[in-house]
Amino acid sequence: MATATTLKGQPLDRAALESMLRRRMFYTPSFEIYGGVSGLYDYGPPGCALQANIIDLWRKHFILEEDMLEVDCSVLTPHEVLKTSGHVDKFADWMCKDPKNGEILRADHFVEDVLETRLKGDKEARGLKVEEKEEDPKKKKKKSKGGEAVKLDDVVVKEYEEILAQIDNYNGEQLGELIKKYDMRNPTTGVQPSPPVAFNLMFQTSIGPSSNLPGYLRPETAQGQFLNFAKLLEFNTGQMPFASASIGKSYRNEISPRAGLLRVREFLMAEIEHFVDPEGHKKHHRFHEVEDIELAFLDRHTQLSGSTTVKKQTIGQAVKDGLVDNETLGYFLARIHLFLLKIGIDQTKIRFRQHMGNEMAHYACDCWDAELFTSAGWVECVGCADRSAYDLSVHAKKTGAPLVVRQRLDEPKIIEEWEVEIEKKKFGPFYKKDGKTIENAILATSQEERGKLAKELEENGKVVIDVPGVADGKVEVSKDLLAIKWIKRTENIREYTPNVIEPSFGIGRILYSLMEHNYWTRASEGGDEARGVLSFPPAVAPTKCLIVPLSSNKDFTPAIRTLSQKLRSAGVSSRIDDSSASIGKRYSRNDELGTPFGVTIDFQTLKDGTVTLRERDSTRQVRAEQDKIIDAIKALIDGSKTWQDIESELPKFESQEVEVVVR
Amino acid sequence: MATATTLKGQPLDRAALESMLRRRMFYTPSFEIYGGVSGLYDYGPPGCALQANIIDLWRKHFILEEDMLEVDCSVLTPHEVLKTSGHVDKFADWMCKDPKNGEILRADHFVEDVLETRLKGDKEARGLKVEEKEEDPKKKKKKSKGGEAVKLDDVVVKEYEEILAQIDNYNGEQLGELIKKYDMRNPTTGVQPSPPVAFNLMFQTSIGPSSNLPGYLRPETAQGQFLNFAKLLEFNTGQMPFASASIGKSYRNEISPRAGLLRVREFLMAEIEHFVDPEGHKKHHRFHEVEDIELAFLDRHTQLSGSTTVKKQTIGQAVKDGLVDNETLGYFLARIHLFLLKIGIDQTKIRFRQHMGNEMAHYACDCWDAELFTSAGWVECVGCADRSAYDLSVHAKKTGAPLVVRQRLDEPKIIEEWEVEIEKKKFGPFYKKDGKTIENAILATSQEERGKLAKELEENGKVVIDVPGVADGKVEVSKDLLAIKWIKRTENIREYTPNVIEPSFGIGRILYSLMEHNYWTRASEGGDEARGVLSFPPAVAPTKCLIVPLSSNKDFTPAIRTLSQKLRSAGVSSRIDDSSASIGKRYSRNDELGTPFGVTIDFQTLKDGTVTLRERDSTRQVRAEQDKIIDAIKALIDGSKTWQDIESELPKFESQEVEVVVR
Repeated sequence: MATATTLKGQPLDRAALESMLRRRMFYTPSFEIYGGVSGLYDYGPPGCALQANIIDLWRKHFILEEDMLEVDCSVLTPHEVLKTSGHVDKFADWMCKDPKNGEILRADHFVEDVLETRLKGDKEARGLKVEEKEEDPKKKKKKSKGGEAVKLDDVVVKEYEEILAQIDNYNGEQLGELIKKYDMRNPTTGVQPSPPVAFNLMFQTSIGPSSNLPGYLRPETAQGQFLNFAKLLEFNTGQMPFASASIGKSYRNEISPRAGLLRVREFLMAEIEHFVDPEGHKKHHRFHEVEDIELAFLDRHTQLSGSTTVKKQTIGQAVKDGLVDNETLGYFLARIHLFLLKIGIDQTKIRFRQHMGNEMAHYACDCWDAELFTSAGWVECVGCADRSAYDLSVHAKKTGAPLVVRQRLDEPKIIEEWEVEIEKKKFGPFYKKDGKTIENAILATSQEERGKLAKELEENGKVVIDVPGVADGKVEVSKDLLAIKWIKRTENIREYTPNVIEPSFGIGRILYSLMEHNYWTRASEGGDEARGVLSFPPAVAPTKCLIVPLSSNKDFTPAIRTLSQKLRSAGVSSRIDDSSASIGKRYSRNDELGTPFGVTIDFQTLKDGTVTLRERDSTRQVRAEQDKIIDAIKALIDGSKTWQDIESELPKFESQEVEVVVR
Repeated sequence: MATATTLKGQPLDRAALESMLRRRMFYTPSFEIYGGVSGLYDYGPPGCALQANIIDLWRKHFILEEDMLEVDCSVLTPHEVLKTSGHVDKFADWMCKDPKNGEILRADHFVEDVLETRLKGDKEARGLKVEEKEEDPKKKKKKSKGGEAVKLDDVVVKEYEEILAQIDNYNGEQLGELIKKYDMRNPTTGVQPSPPVAFNLMFQTSIGPSSNLPGYLRPETAQGQFLNFAKLLEFNTGQMPFASASIGKSYRNEISPRAGLLRVREFLMAEIEHFVDPEGHKKHHRFHEVEDIELAFLDRHTQLSGSTTVKKQTIGQAVKDGLVDNETLGYFLARIHLFLLKIGIDQTKIRFRQHMGNEMAHYACDCWDAELFTSAGWVECVGCADRSAYDLSVHAKKTGAPLVVRQRLDEPKIIEEWEVEIEKKKFGPFYKKDGKTIENAILATSQEERGKLAKELEENGKVVIDVPGVADGKVEVSKDLLAIKWIKRTENIREYTPNVIEPSFGIGRILYSLMEHNYWTRASEGGDEARGVLSFPPAVAPTKCLIVPLSSNKDFTPAIRTLSQKLRSAGVSSRIDDSSASIGKRYSRNDELGTPFGVTIDFQTLKDGTVTLRERDSTRQVRAEQDKIIDAIKALIDGSKTWQDIESELPKFESQEVEVVVR
């Protein structure tokens, strides 16, 4: 799959789609009359409804289905919390500055842009067809920089391609070396940018009247969930495993966002923190329900070898093979996949890509992204990270709060082991400045070593310990300073810090991908112009039903009002279009909004109460009594019937829009 | 109504309620393990669900019922937008500093505190009963500052009471004068604080990597709606009036928040901007539907006279009398009232208070607050402001964007009038630096004046114009510089800037008030301890149904799973409590969460499939086959049946919880 396509396999014209989406107010740049601010967008009525419907399905698919504990935490976050979590020090991108015009560039994107432009120039010089969009991880849409057609050495081409396949794996220093080594210059000035420096992505502010409390806008919803762990565990009556979840805005001060809804500074996230006992291989009790689901995997080894070829297999097999580390992680990958399908994402445009070592966030020990293929290449839309015990541990250590699970053991555990007793009063004064180092060396000994030391101590009255860095590395300790005893104790409680598996959804990116995946065009009646259609599944479509009176004749008003009221009572959102445009034109305007059903009220309606029902994708119609049509719409929305079912149940309405106009 | 009461009229113990709400995780201070940050709270699972249900009802009551256009706009807002809107200059509170300990005080709250403490001391000295909570506008809860029992002059008492009745009407200078005049001192230091200075309440940040774009977190959702006005009008196919709406977080850097959920720095708002033609007295086509609804009004004149006595009358009468300015404003006051009743606010604890002159926000020309009575006094929960054309005008002027409605006139309008023509080429050079001032003075003349000037110009070849500030205030203008002609032109289009009526809901304050209004206590079975109950209407209750197996016997597991699955399919949120606590204890734990219904699964269930259904408020029970019980629950939630209906339809279950335990 090299270029993005529409739902019907047509080449996707992103400019045409975006123009339609903005014209129909799915979204619009924020503050546009003030010139706009890059990376900030507003959702208009259809975008807002689409977002609300996605969120509603998300809540049902995850929170309600699995009794997750939903929380809503503050966005404003004091410095100390994010210092502890590591975000103040490590949540950064690499930034370069053009010394000539002061332009600020995101280093990895700059390297990508330059290399891609050179590869394109090389292809042109070789007389090869240049594809505007290619299959590459995390490719960003950009304008052609007018690269010249310069042929490169085959070796250089290979080097460039390998760099691009692992572009997310370089740190700032490495990116700086690449810029120097390949003499990369900002095309607008011809100058090489400065070495990359870290730029923290958090928006800073201060809380309170005297600017005394520095804070940030949260970069993720997760921290609020971690800080409440002890209360959530109690709310869950102490039972493990359990998950919390949160839907809310987060903020990242992107260096130079230029990719529409795909890279924004303010975004809606839906995050789950699933807390699990690290012992027992993170098994999941519902894993058997998903184990046969097939996913497309792109693991880190494949990427590091310079390839982006996916491997399709069941999640059951992937966990068995160790490709995916454990059942809980695997369970969520499959559930993410099912959710994406449910809202209408194209199954062939989903892959799960594993993060490479340097790419992973500072808190993660493993991470798989659900990436969706769009006109901007593969886009990370859901991250699924194993954060291990990282966050709970650092916050517990900093605050002293017991962010742990205390589990009563079914059978008390009897522990017998060698225990070290140091005679502190004498030990310190005897060894003076080396005391602490020697003590630590003794405490670091294994059970096996302690057994030997105990015997030695008993036999010789002293032992010799290896202490690197003290004297010649050997230290003698006598039995008046040290005892090693075989002890026995009973434990009734096991205390542990849970691990966290975190599925994290970028709702805006999913929403944009969904619009691309459901978009297609069909010839208009005149045939002169292609008309856009958004074939959203009924459950996510912004409006479910369009009500179209034949004309603006006042006689239709009571029937419109009755139908509108009945649909509202049935929980079906509808919109009336009683403008003077032709019925065909009114329907095609609503195809652009993705409205799946349309009901026409005509003179026949006034006689016998029947109305026609039109289905958006086929444009076919049936005609029946109003209440039957409403029942049909309800069944189509809740998925209990298909359009085929409806066509087999209700009389077809053959007379087309033309006929209606003629009457 | 002098003191706050529970749903059953018991005196409200706020400390007990808050302790219960925090224990059951309705809400919790954010970052509590780090010591917390004042004015920031997290919602736990029940609070989060309660909030979602309130929002859901709000969306149905306002957005769906009236086809409003919902938008979701950016929180991050560039400086220029909020400079134009007036927020940078005027969105401030008055702040004092204690020069001794550096404590920062909000000036109006400080004055209130001091005067209330003195009045309390006076009452004590007079041997009168001191009420802890009094009926006073915008009273804030505070701890007794240990005021001494000092008797005041009768005249002074009257002065203090009059100041308190209009405390929201003083500006910083006036507050400073009061502090000096009455020698007010910070009780913790005994020192008089510094004169009040304005403190802007917006959180500041900067957008982009080079800190080049200063911005703020929005203090209201309104601005995003105004900036999109032209697009929204187009989306609405040019039809007026219409409303946009938005639900989202806003931020205010409160000086010293100490009132729990009632004064917070980050809060969820739901705002409507209803755009209306200023001509035609802002009539509303659905006003007749609400005109008979009776509201409690407290107008500005009453407050300024030092009283807080409300006047009850229908909204129809209030608009007719001019108490409420127009139908559109009146319509929304009534709709707000209906919404509050629908979610379960106590009708006797609602009043509509009009803002006094100095109290109004800089953009408002009239404003009524829906205030709810709580243990903290009357609390502003919904504002309903007439923002006139203020916002659209200032943004249009600043950006040049046409934020106007162009209305085709049914009949072209023929306009005949005096028009001024200035001979610009000569005029400017002739008057030099005074040219512009003189020109403006001429353009500012009325039609009547122009008629006279035209005659004078014809007769004398010159006119004398009053121009304050130029020469001696009189300027001679000759007819080669100026002509005044009687012209006639035809207008087909009327262009106007709509006015805005803005109902603005603080969801967190409503949510807190709702918890107080629905709280009460009942004696436990043993009678030794009062147990809290939250009698939320089923539609807003966080969880609708509790599933209680008789015991943790494994035999019940399949029945629990079936019931839980059936309830989920029916769209009824449920929770299982299979802990080892007694059934009575489990029910009373869920009364604290406001769960309206409970279903018990017992050994009889395993035999014949029947279950019992318990109603929270009466604790009465019925018993029937599972599917009948589920239908009953659905009907109780959607309001189509009452508990009385269910009791008359299904067999009573008389054996009480004790019986169940006995089996």
